[in-house]
Amino acid sequence: MADGIDIGERLATAPELFTPLARSLPATVPFVGPEALERRMGIRFRARLGANESVFGPSPRAAEAMARAAAGSWAYGDPELSELREALAHKHGLTRAHISVGEGIDGLLGHLVRLTCEPGDRVVTSLGAYPTFNYHVAGHGARLDLVPYRNDHEDVEALIERARTLRPKLLYFANPDNPTGSWAEASTVRRLIDETPAETILVLDEAYGDFAPEGTLPPSDLLRPNLLRFRTFSKAYGMAGVRIGYVFGDPASAVQFDKVRNHFGVSRIAQAGALAALGDDRFLRDTIERVARARDRIGAIARANGLAPLPSATNFVAIDAGRDGTYARALLDAVLRRGVFIRMPGVAPLDRLIRVTVGRDEDLDLFAEALAGALDEVGGPDERLSGS
Amino acid sequence: MADGIDIGERLATAPELFTPLARSLPATVPFVGPEALERRMGIRFRARLGANESVFGPSPRAAEAMARAAAGSWAYGDPELSELREALAHKHGLTRAHISVGEGIDGLLGHLVRLTCEPGDRVVTSLGAYPTFNYHVAGHGARLDLVPYRNDHEDVEALIERARTLRPKLLYFANPDNPTGSWAEASTVRRLIDETPAETILVLDEAYGDFAPEGTLPPSDLLRPNLLRFRTFSKAYGMAGVRIGYVFGDPASAVQFDKVRNHFGVSRIAQAGALAALGDDRFLRDTIERVARARDRIGAIARANGLAPLPSATNFVAIDAGRDGTYARALLDAVLRRGVFIRMPGVAPLDRLIRVTVGRDEDLDLFAEALAGALDEVGGPDERLSGS
Repeated sequence: MADGIDIGERLATAPELFTPLARSLPATVPFVGPEALERRMGIRFRARLGANESVFGPSPRAAEAMARAAAGSWAYGDPELSELREALAHKHGLTRAHISVGEGIDGLLGHLVRLTCEPGDRVVTSLGAYPTFNYHVAGHGARLDLVPYRNDHEDVEALIERARTLRPKLLYFANPDNPTGSWAEASTVRRLIDETPAETILVLDEAYGDFAPEGTLPPSDLLRPNLLRFRTFSKAYGMAGVRIGYVFGDPASAVQFDKVRNHFGVSRIAQAGALAALGDDRFLRDTIERVARARDRIGAIARANGLAPLPSATNFVAIDAGRDGTYARALLDAVLRRGVFIRMPGVAPLDRLIRVTVGRDEDLDLFAEALAGALDEVGGPDERLSGS
Repeated sequence: MADGIDIGERLATAPELFTPLARSLPATVPFVGPEALERRMGIRFRARLGANESVFGPSPRAAEAMARAAAGSWAYGDPELSELREALAHKHGLTRAHISVGEGIDGLLGHLVRLTCEPGDRVVTSLGAYPTFNYHVAGHGARLDLVPYRNDHEDVEALIERARTLRPKLLYFANPDNPTGSWAEASTVRRLIDETPAETILVLDEAYGDFAPEGTLPPSDLLRPNLLRFRTFSKAYGMAGVRIGYVFGDPASAVQFDKVRNHFGVSRIAQAGALAALGDDRFLRDTIERVARARDRIGAIARANGLAPLPSATNFVAIDAGRDGTYARALLDAVLRRGVFIRMPGVAPLDRLIRVTVGRDEDLDLFAEALAGALDEVGGPDERLSGS
């Protein structure tokens, strides 16, 4: 019954239970999940290559630790996440005080926006960058200022320029970048860090940092009060479904998360899994190698079909479909209908790309087949869009 | 190094990176976890009876589903939690649109305060009620108005009176109550629902609802735009360490959570576990019976030691230590030092209570021994406090 209710009408007559800001927000999901797509399209995906997950999975040690923790999950997890923060501190050559752990980078970004932004405050990011960050900014009533990509890279000089002009509360930069897969060298990031105004926090999203070539990530001990760096167990560690990420930086800034976080929010299972994952460097290295090989293969599949893959330092490859967003969307839909879940950026000019996450050989076989079939259906990039 | 840093000093000289509200908040934890207590006291607890967890554990079916999900946790969970919400809807005779799932009731309460309260807005609760709710209220800059308990029960008439006078954004009521264990009959709750001002949302926290005698919970289909009811898998379902709870109510209000929640925040493992737990009614009934027996035994232990247990409809028993907060704190500390983790309310007059969660026979044996030893050490309630 109520799934089809006219919510707009009811809200109009109800007293004002929710804040003006809340009432102004849409009830949207930044990303539609593959499960929802399956329900909507009435199909079942044979390959799941759209959410930048790692089908190579969590380390067997992490999976075992989580399975063990599941039976013991009658007990709350440690709200101070002491053991895990200690291990992360060791990894980065820092201390526990530099680190806060949360329900994925998404959760931590939400906390950060809340801690820094009041309605009307300015925030700078790139046009087409991470939608969930934008969701949190809008959710706190702050104003997004969007800097276009330049040659499918975030435009560091333009971001610096805009930050100098607007003096925003936050400046978002992903390195490596999603959705393009591009990356900046550490020296460039260093310049961005040095040029960010003192009253602006540089939000350095390094979710894909584990995949990047040496010389991409600045050293962990490069600390500034206005620099916070975000890492996750969702990508190289293969634990997207576990929901755990962390932020590190100057203790005076890192401690702020303790003021607003959901203290028991990171599950006992997630803590056990992350701790075990940190102890399995070999699995991590293997995953990174497998990802690199799969990335090469996606590039080869793209080229074999007359499409241009973008260089990538992540676990996905953005493929230039060679025309506009309408064409890329038609191509994407045709791939989806063939049972292969992939995604694409939502705004021009990045919306001429389709984004394919790495997979096992059998997943990429399915993608190769689906892509060829989809191109047959909608026509290659050099032809007119069939049926339009 | 930085664990001992003088954060106050650094913040004073830093530019204002964080909002005035954030800067005014303390970096505290509403509850100190047993792990932190162990580190601080240099001991290891032999029985964990302080956090209202269920040592009887999750259903074996839920544990198995979570262990299975752990290996598959490379994939994000369904952000719409469709299957789980469908099962919850079935349980309550509602629809998916009535239900929002989150990272425990704690996470959902945080979202609700954010959705409803602007700085300076009024919120009414009971003096000594759930600290994490108060943490979220303070965290959003709203003003708490506290109504004293009456005979160790939340004072329904006084809460109604205060809500009529203040017209707060939120009115918090837990049924059954934590930390006293007391409960109100459904007819009383119904009166509270009917008398809550139309512009106030009644926050009905039913975390312990599964343990309550029949006639305590109002029917699930009693819907109001200004009524939201909170349930959890942390208590009777024995899944505190999994982090999953839900809220249900009028769809126009339930949908608001979609505007601010961390869409991928409820892990794939948690979703699988909760779904399996809902399918094991027999385990739930067994747990509820075991909890009732253990509650009786805690009462008997209290009485055997000359202390008065309060009636409880939860998985814990509040024991009146018979004197003031200083005495109860000394008694509590002496129990802790004997390796048994229990807790106590923080504010008078409830701080004359100590709160003991149910446990297995062997846990309660340890509690009985620790309580007797602690009373020997600090003196019984009728004696003078030894050493003071």
